[in-house]
Amino acid sequence: MNFGSISELTTAINSQLDTFFERESRYLADVGSELLPVCEAMGHFLLDSGKRLRPLFAAIGHSGVGGEITPQSLQALASLELVHVCALIHDDVMDESDTRRGAPSIHKKFEAIHESEGLHGRASQFGISAAILMGDLALIWAAKMLHESQLPAHQILQSLPIYDEMRVELMAGQYLDVYEQAVASESIERSLKVARFKSGKYSIERPLHFGATLAPKYSLDQLRMYSNYGLPLGEAFQLRDDVIGVFGDPAKTGKPAGDDLREGKRTVIIAMTLEKIDEASRKKFQSLFGNKELDSDGIDSLREIIKASGALDRVELLIEEMTFSAHKALKADGIGSHAKNLLAEMAEAATQRSA
Amino acid sequence: MNFGSISELTTAINSQLDTFFERESRYLADVGSELLPVCEAMGHFLLDSGKRLRPLFAAIGHSGVGGEITPQSLQALASLELVHVCALIHDDVMDESDTRRGAPSIHKKFEAIHESEGLHGRASQFGISAAILMGDLALIWAAKMLHESQLPAHQILQSLPIYDEMRVELMAGQYLDVYEQAVASESIERSLKVARFKSGKYSIERPLHFGATLAPKYSLDQLRMYSNYGLPLGEAFQLRDDVIGVFGDPAKTGKPAGDDLREGKRTVIIAMTLEKIDEASRKKFQSLFGNKELDSDGIDSLREIIKASGALDRVELLIEEMTFSAHKALKADGIGSHAKNLLAEMAEAATQRSA
Repeated sequence: MNFGSISELTTAINSQLDTFFERESRYLADVGSELLPVCEAMGHFLLDSGKRLRPLFAAIGHSGVGGEITPQSLQALASLELVHVCALIHDDVMDESDTRRGAPSIHKKFEAIHESEGLHGRASQFGISAAILMGDLALIWAAKMLHESQLPAHQILQSLPIYDEMRVELMAGQYLDVYEQAVASESIERSLKVARFKSGKYSIERPLHFGATLAPKYSLDQLRMYSNYGLPLGEAFQLRDDVIGVFGDPAKTGKPAGDDLREGKRTVIIAMTLEKIDEASRKKFQSLFGNKELDSDGIDSLREIIKASGALDRVELLIEEMTFSAHKALKADGIGSHAKNLLAEMAEAATQRSA
Repeated sequence: MNFGSISELTTAINSQLDTFFERESRYLADVGSELLPVCEAMGHFLLDSGKRLRPLFAAIGHSGVGGEITPQSLQALASLELVHVCALIHDDVMDESDTRRGAPSIHKKFEAIHESEGLHGRASQFGISAAILMGDLALIWAAKMLHESQLPAHQILQSLPIYDEMRVELMAGQYLDVYEQAVASESIERSLKVARFKSGKYSIERPLHFGATLAPKYSLDQLRMYSNYGLPLGEAFQLRDDVIGVFGDPAKTGKPAGDDLREGKRTVIIAMTLEKIDEASRKKFQSLFGNKELDSDGIDSLREIIKASGALDRVELLIEEMTFSAHKALKADGIGSHAKNLLAEMAEAATQRSA
C-alpha cells in the first residue's frame, strides 16, 4: 500500500478501525440485544472523532525501520487506538468528567440510558459500571485486533514485550497522576515526572517502538533514535495538553472552557504558577482553583494570574525546547527519509495544536 | 514436573504467581515510591487467598491433551488468575461491595488510605480510581505473564484466539449481569443466560480450552469434550455461588451473611422464588429484598421464603443434574486418564463447596 501523507495514513487507519468494530459489534449483538447500547456507544466513541495520534506514530515507526504498510500491518498498528479508548473511558470516570469530544462521556451516557429507561438502582452507579466494563472491553479488543492482524507470527510476538511495558507504564502513570492530584502537590519536578510517565512515553515513544517491533526487523539503535525523538516530544505534547486545559477554546476542544481549572488539576503550568506568585495572588488563586462552580469571570482571573506569573511563557519555552530536541534527534541516521519527514510534520501537529 | 494431586498443582501455581508478582512489583517500586501501596494491596489480593480454580482447570486441560506441566507452561496457565483478579476488583466497584475474602475490597482500602493520609478530594472517588487502575493493571499483568512464559511461540499464539474470546465473553457477561440487576428481571431464563455467560463459560470451559490450546497440539474433539464437561459444570458452579450468596456462612465466605439479599442481587434462585410465591409472601419478600440495612431477622425471613417456595430444592436439583452431565461427559475418549480423574475431583470441589 502506498501512502504519501499523514492524512492518507489516517484514512487507512480509520478504515481498519471501522472494519474491526463492525465485526466485533456484530458478535456482541449476537450475544444479546441488551448489548446494543454498548455497541452504539463504543462506535460513536471510537469512530466519530480522535486524531489517531498513537496509530500514526506506530505506523511511521513501522515504516521508518523498513516495515511495509499493508492492511495486515495497519490492523496491528491501528489497534493502539483502542488502548487509548480504554484509557479515556476510565479516565473520565476517575476525573468525573461529564464530556468528551463534545459529547457526554461514557458513564454519563449510560447514566442517561438508566434514567430514560427508568431502571432500578442509582443511575450514576449504572453509568460507572458500564464505563468500567467498556474500558475493559476496549483494552481486550485492542489486543484482539493486534493478535488477529495476520502479520507473521514472529512479528506479533516480538512486539509484545514493548506492548506490555507500554500498558504497564500507562497504568502506573495514571496512578501517579491520581495520587499527585490527591496530595495537591506544588512540585514542578513531580508534575514533570507525571507528565513523563502518563503521556511522555505512552503517547509517542512507545507507539514508535511498538511499530518498529512489528516490522520484520529493527535495531536497538533505531529504537534509541525513536526515544530521542519521542520522549521530549511526548512531554511537549503533554505540556500542550495542559495549556489547552487552561486556555483552550471549547469550540475546538469539545470540553468546557477552563475545565482543568474547575477540576483543580495539578499540572506543570500550575506548579510553575504557584512557584512565582506573591501571597495576595496565591490567596486569590486558591479561592478559585478547583471550584466546580467557577464562572467565566473566575476562569479569566485564574488565567490572568497564570499569565502574570510568567508560567505560560515558561511552559511555551519548554515546549519549544523539547520540540527542538525532537527535531534534532531526527538528524541521526538509520531511519527512512520519508518517515523522518512525517515525524517532523507530526512534531508540529503534536505541539502546535489547539485541541 | 510431576504432579499427582490438585493440592500439588495449586502449590506450583501459587509459586508462579509469587515469582511473577515479586518481579512486577519491584518494577513498579522503581517507577516511584508512590506505587508501594499499589504493590502491597495487589500482593495481598493476589497471594493471600483464592482457590486458583481457573488456573487449575487450565492446567488439567493442558495436561489432558498431552501438554507437559513445566515451569514454563505453569506460568502461562497460572496467568488466568490475574484475569480473575481484574474481574473481582472491578466487580466490587460495580457492586459497591465493601469486603472481599474477609478483607476490605480494593476501593475501600484506598478510600481508607486517602482518609488516613488526609489527602485532598473525596476519599471514595480516590478509592474508585485506584481500583479501576489496579483492575486494568491486573488484566495487563495477566497478558504479560502469559507472553513471558517462554513456551514455544506457536503454542502461545494458538492460545490467543480462545484467550481473547474468553475475555470478551467475560465483559459481555458482566454487562448482562449489571443490566439484569437494573431491569430487576424476574425471568428464570434470563438469569440462567447471565449465569451461562458470566460464569458458565468463563470459569471452567474456557480455562480448559485455554490450557489445551497452550499444548503442542490438541484436537477439536478434545475441545468439544471439554465443553461438554465444562459448560454444565460452569453453570452449576455459578448456581452454587448464588446459593452461597444467600445461605453462606460468613466465617467461610469472608462476606457478611446474606450479602446478595442485602444487595438485592437477581439470580436464578431469586427468579425461581418469585415464580412460585403467593401475593402475601411476595409483598413481604419485596419489602426486605435489596434493603442495605437488613438485619439478621430480615435475612432469616427471606431465607425462609426462598426455602418454602421450593426454590432452594430446585436449584440444588439443577446443580445435581448439571454436575451429573459433567461427569457423564468424562466418559468420552480422547483425554488422558489422570486428567479425567482430576476433573472428576474438581467437579465436586466446584459444586459442593461452602465458600
